Amino acid sequence: MTSRPSSSPAPATSRVTSHDVSREAGVSQSAVSRAFTPGAHISPEMRRRVLEAAHRLGYQPNAIARSLVTQRSGIVALIVGELHNPFYPQALSLFAQALEARGKRALLLTHDVRRDIQETLDAARSYQIEAAIIFPTRLNSTPPSLGDAQHGGVPVLLFNRHLPGHELLSVACDNYAGGRLAAEVLLRGGAERLAFIGGDPDTSTHQDRLSGFTGRLAESGLTPVAAPAQAFQYDWGVQATLDLHAAGIRPDAVFGANDIIAIGVLDALRSLGRRVPEEVSVIGFDDIQESARLAYRLTTIRQPMEAMIEDALAALEDPQPAPVPRLHPGELVWRGTVRGQP
Amino acid sequence: MTSRPSSSPAPATSRVTSHDVSREAGVSQSAVSRAFTPGAHISPEMRRRVLEAAHRLGYQPNAIARSLVTQRSGIVALIVGELHNPFYPQALSLFAQALEARGKRALLLTHDVRRDIQETLDAARSYQIEAAIIFPTRLNSTPPSLGDAQHGGVPVLLFNRHLPGHELLSVACDNYAGGRLAAEVLLRGGAERLAFIGGDPDTSTHQDRLSGFTGRLAESGLTPVAAPAQAFQYDWGVQATLDLHAAGIRPDAVFGANDIIAIGVLDALRSLGRRVPEEVSVIGFDDIQESARLAYRLTTIRQPMEAMIEDALAALEDPQPAPVPRLHPGELVWRGTVRGQP
Repeated sequence: MTSRPSSSPAPATSRVTSHDVSREAGVSQSAVSRAFTPGAHISPEMRRRVLEAAHRLGYQPNAIARSLVTQRSGIVALIVGELHNPFYPQALSLFAQALEARGKRALLLTHDVRRDIQETLDAARSYQIEAAIIFPTRLNSTPPSLGDAQHGGVPVLLFNRHLPGHELLSVACDNYAGGRLAAEVLLRGGAERLAFIGGDPDTSTHQDRLSGFTGRLAESGLTPVAAPAQAFQYDWGVQATLDLHAAGIRPDAVFGANDIIAIGVLDALRSLGRRVPEEVSVIGFDDIQESARLAYRLTTIRQPMEAMIEDALAALEDPQPAPVPRLHPGELVWRGTVRGQP
Repeated sequence: MTSRPSSSPAPATSRVTSHDVSREAGVSQSAVSRAFTPGAHISPEMRRRVLEAAHRLGYQPNAIARSLVTQRSGIVALIVGELHNPFYPQALSLFAQALEARGKRALLLTHDVRRDIQETLDAARSYQIEAAIIFPTRLNSTPPSLGDAQHGGVPVLLFNRHLPGHELLSVACDNYAGGRLAAEVLLRGGAERLAFIGGDPDTSTHQDRLSGFTGRLAESGLTPVAAPAQAFQYDWGVQATLDLHAAGIRPDAVFGANDIIAIGVLDALRSLGRRVPEEVSVIGFDDIQESARLAYRLTTIRQPMEAMIEDALAALEDPQPAPVPRLHPGELVWRGTVRGQP
């Protein structure tokens, strides 16, 4: 089995230029350029002629060299942290696709929370990135402000988090309103002893969801029977539930600060023989793929990820100092883990 | 709250060069270069002096411009397909970290299986990538051979798949031996009616695991009671199990072609009221994070991901035509879903 049909390009002995391609195809150099620019205006027939000529000559456009001339590398850095929460891999994949639809590419960098975010941003900026999107929910140092970032020519956006009092671009779900909605839904189902199982307490997602939840409970004269917090992880959801049980605390409704925690809560409740939703209602936040599975059917607050991603990319194209995050309302996804009817 | 302490760099009115930094820091230009090269030999004190001077002047090294001179961009393309299988996001994150440990960066590209893989590779190559790693298990066209790839200067490696008769670099788990091991473990537990729930039948992972499984069964005079195949997805694992049941086929052991299928099998068996492992043993392949969860405790064949990633990066540093994949043995992870003792 050979790897290519007989149309294999001849070896390029010297560097083939776009000028050679335009001559070979019998078209203008501008047409060659458009054929290699995603989204550019060119007829399918013209594009085919150019690509065939380029293939015969072994021509490769050089996006890197072009970026030094145009000052537009087309590269956007995606800075990710730990990927225990499936929300982030799912967001990453959608971001990469959304960038490609705009003719751009994603440079993936991992960020170790023990390091300064400025180091990671500097590493990314050496690749002439057009923008950077920060995913980790926890940073042990403050990223540069938008002013600093624009000085370096690179706007920075926080995805699904914000830093209060900071002017960085930020796109997030309305976590406060989502926390209120979670309380509302549980109360409507008749819950009286409500617990919150929190994520990392230093993050805005945790704090805003908790504030919304307790705020709505207070309006009904209630306080949470427990609100332990530690990490946005499955294992923590399991452990927190077992700990409450061991301490003799029996909530009749639990709000998991995100879906992966709520899934841990469901598994722990099942292992304790407690029936969901008959004895305990459970609601999560995010609507990750596995929440829809047969074994969970988790009622949750969905983050409108596609809309948030589109908004993030739009914000980066025209960055303005933003003292408050751009918020998107969460949507209730009704499945089988909360008592009562929608 | 301000974003930076008073050490904020002055705005750069004209482009700051490494020469300016060497003068400001009172060190050689070579020292400046080494301070910005990951893994280069430089004392911590010298590096600190350079970085402080660079920060005062607002200097940013330009990895892109450097790559045109050195012909080493440090960028490796990771080409991913659909991310329904959590194995791939987990691999992606580990690959990005392993590349960073080598001073390189990951350019993330998504590949739509309806398109030609050559188009995606060409798009990646325009960023002067040093190598490309292909993750999608299914391609509707053949990627270029290593010879073609080297002609373009960019070695290509298939991760966790191979194309028989093809000389491309490939690193995979020993899926045939893993399939045999799955059969062995189920037989040892006393299974007599064994089923295989396959993934995408056009992929080498599916084919090799099935061959190993049926090969070992044949040695015991058995054939699978069923071997439906469709996709490496949770929903398919659920549906295949319900379909077998509806057709009156009751296996006493099931090998799911990967963990996400096996998890679907477990959820479907639970919904049918069949006890695992008392009535049905279930084994998977991969050892994704969720297989360890309380609700599943899935016995599985673990892919040694870290070793495979190290091997892939080593192979790309010295690419040789490779008619057979570099295989890594899978390891049995004994949990709670198979009858009998290890």
